[in-house]
Amino acid sequence: MAATEENSKVCEAYPMKGGDGPTGYANNSVYQRGGADASKQFVNKAIAELELETLISSKTFRIADLGCSVGPNTFFSVENIIETLQLKCNSLGLNSQIPEFQVFFNDHASNDFNLLFNSLPHNRQYYAAGVPGSFHGRLFPNSSIHLFHSSFSIPWISRVPKEVVNKNSPAWNKGRIFYSDATDEVLRAYEAQNVEDMECFLNARAQEIVNGGLMVLIIPGRQDDTPHSQSLPNMLFQILGSCLMEMARKGIVDEEKVDSFNLPNYFMSSKELEAAIERNGRFSVERWENLHHFAAHDIVYNIPQLLASQVRATMEGLIKQQFGDETLDELFDLYGKRIAEQQFVVVTGKAMVYLLVLKLKAN
Amino acid sequence: MAATEENSKVCEAYPMKGGDGPTGYANNSVYQRGGADASKQFVNKAIAELELETLISSKTFRIADLGCSVGPNTFFSVENIIETLQLKCNSLGLNSQIPEFQVFFNDHASNDFNLLFNSLPHNRQYYAAGVPGSFHGRLFPNSSIHLFHSSFSIPWISRVPKEVVNKNSPAWNKGRIFYSDATDEVLRAYEAQNVEDMECFLNARAQEIVNGGLMVLIIPGRQDDTPHSQSLPNMLFQILGSCLMEMARKGIVDEEKVDSFNLPNYFMSSKELEAAIERNGRFSVERWENLHHFAAHDIVYNIPQLLASQVRATMEGLIKQQFGDETLDELFDLYGKRIAEQQFVVVTGKAMVYLLVLKLKAN
Repeated sequence: MAATEENSKVCEAYPMKGGDGPTGYANNSVYQRGGADASKQFVNKAIAELELETLISSKTFRIADLGCSVGPNTFFSVENIIETLQLKCNSLGLNSQIPEFQVFFNDHASNDFNLLFNSLPHNRQYYAAGVPGSFHGRLFPNSSIHLFHSSFSIPWISRVPKEVVNKNSPAWNKGRIFYSDATDEVLRAYEAQNVEDMECFLNARAQEIVNGGLMVLIIPGRQDDTPHSQSLPNMLFQILGSCLMEMARKGIVDEEKVDSFNLPNYFMSSKELEAAIERNGRFSVERWENLHHFAAHDIVYNIPQLLASQVRATMEGLIKQQFGDETLDELFDLYGKRIAEQQFVVVTGKAMVYLLVLKLKAN
Repeated sequence: MAATEENSKVCEAYPMKGGDGPTGYANNSVYQRGGADASKQFVNKAIAELELETLISSKTFRIADLGCSVGPNTFFSVENIIETLQLKCNSLGLNSQIPEFQVFFNDHASNDFNLLFNSLPHNRQYYAAGVPGSFHGRLFPNSSIHLFHSSFSIPWISRVPKEVVNKNSPAWNKGRIFYSDATDEVLRAYEAQNVEDMECFLNARAQEIVNGGLMVLIIPGRQDDTPHSQSLPNMLFQILGSCLMEMARKGIVDEEKVDSFNLPNYFMSSKELEAAIERNGRFSVERWENLHHFAAHDIVYNIPQLLASQVRATMEGLIKQQFGDETLDELFDLYGKRIAEQQFVVVTGKAMVYLLVLKLKAN
C-alpha cells in the first residue's frame, strides 16, 4: 500500500507566518515575487519550445505546487503556467481538446491552508485542492502529476541535522544558528542532510510524475565560486544569528536557546544540485538558467527594514517556537538596524537563483 | 474551460464550528457518528455485493467526501470504505493490483481545514487532499472520482431562499427561523430551493464521477407520512427559533434579526429524494435503506443538554454571524432547558436517515 509522507520520512514542519497582517508572509514575499517574475519568461519560453504534445493531450492536466505557502505568488505562477499551456494547445491546433486543469497546493500541515483557500482567485480556470505534508516524502499517487512547480521552497531541508544540536558532538553549533559561518563539522552535517533530502525529494517526485512529466524548479542557491559566508541569504541569516547572540549577552534571550536553535535551510551550489539530479538518475535537465541579479540589492541600500521584514515573515514561526512571541519585535527591530549598519557588506553578498526544467526520463 | 464552483453557482457558506474545544463540531457530532456507525454495515454489504471489478482495477482509486467538516467521523467512514474495497480486491484475487487510494476532503472554504489537516490519521493508507468549495457546484475534473461519499451534509441547501427574508414577499418568515412551523409560502420557497440544489448537486457529480462510479449518501430526511413539524431535526430547529423569539421579547436579541434569520437546511421525504434522482436521470439506485431509529431518542431522555450541544456545534457559526458571539452561551443554555422541558414531545419526533448507493449509468 502507498506509504504516506509520515511513513516514509520523519520530518519537522516549518510554517511560513500565516495571516495576512503586515508581518505575514503574504505581504512580505517581494524577494520571492522577484524570482517568480523573472522565472515567468523562463517558464513561458520553455513551455513554448518543449515537445509537449503527448503531455497536454491528457483530459485532465494535474499541476502540483510544492511549498506553496499562503502568499499570492503561487497563484500567479500557476496561472501563468496554465495560460502558457493553453496557448501551446492552441498553437498545436488542439483547441477543442484543451485539458481541464487541477492544481494541488502543497505545504506542511502547519501552513495556513484556511487563508490559502479563502484567497483562491474566484475566476480561476482550474480545480483547486490543498495537500498537506512534507515534499521530502510521498504526497500523490503514482504517475498522477503532469507538472510539478516549486518556487523558493527547495532550500528548506527536512530538519536541522541532529548532531548540530548535540552538545557532545563535534558538530555542535554553539553560538550560531546557521552553517555558513560555522565549523566544517557543522557544514558537513548540513551538506549530508541536504544530500539525503534531495534524494527523498527526487525519488518521491519520480514516482508521482507521469511519463514525460515536467518539473519546474526555482531554487535560490549559492554561486559555485562563492564561499558559503558570502552568499546573500547566508549573510542575512548570519546577521540574524548575531542579533540573537547580542540579545543573549544582554540577558534578553537564553544563550542555551540560541545554541540549540538552527535554521533548517541549505543553499546548494550548481554542482551540488547537478550531482543530486545525476544521483537520482530519473530526470533529464531540459532547461537550466542561472539568475544572478534581482531586486535584493536595491532593497539592501534603500529599505533594509524591508529585508528584515522578509526574513521575519519567513522565519518568524520558527523563532517564536524557540524564543517566544515577546522577543519577536525587539529581535527584528535590532535586525533591521544591523542590516542597515552593514549594508555595504551585505550588498557584496552574492545572490543566485537556479531556474530549471526537469523531465522524467522514459522507463 | 472548466467552470469553478464560483462560476457555476452563487452559494453561501455555512461552516461547522471549527476548533476542537468543548463546543466545537469535532467533539459534538455523536448524532452524525450514530448515522456513520449504522451506515458502516450498509456500506460494507453494498461493496461486498456489488459488481466492482472494473472500478477497482484502476491504478488510483479516488474517493471524495463531500461536506467533510472537521470531525473524526469522516476519517472513520473513509477508512472503512478503503478497508472494504481492499477486502473486495483480495476476494477477487486482485492482491497484487490493489489500487492506491487518494481521498479528497471537501467542504466550504470557511471550514477549518487547518484543523482537519492537522488531525489526519498518521497511519492512513491514502493520499489526502482538501478541496474547498460548495458541492452544489463543480469541484473536480470530468470523470475523475471513483466514489463519492457524503454523510449528513446533503440537507444543507446552498442558501436561504431570498423571498423568505424579503419583508414584501408573501413568503416572509417573520418570527421563525425554519420552514417546518411556517406558512405554506415559506415551505414552497424552501422546497423550490432544494429542488434546484439537488439538481445542481447531481449534475455536478454526474460529470465528475467515472463510468460505473459509486455515490454513497447518508441523508437525514423526513418520513413520507410525517408532517414537517413532527420530524425530529425540524422540531429541534423550531425550539431553537422559539428560544430566539423568547430572547427577542426580553430585549436580549433584536427581533428584526430573528425575522431575517433562517436556517439553510431542508429535510427531504423519500419521495422528494427519489424524484430528484429521477429528474437528473444519470444515476441508478443500487441500494436504498431507511434507518428509522438511532441514538437520538436515548439522548433526548437522558442528556437533553447534549442534544443542545450538538445543534450548537452545527449552527453556532451561523448564529454568531447574525446575533454576535455574546448571545451564544445564554441562547444554548436556554435551549437545553427548553429541550428538557419538552422532552416528552421531542421524543415523539420522527427520525429518518436514508442510506443510498447510486451508480452512474453507462452513457
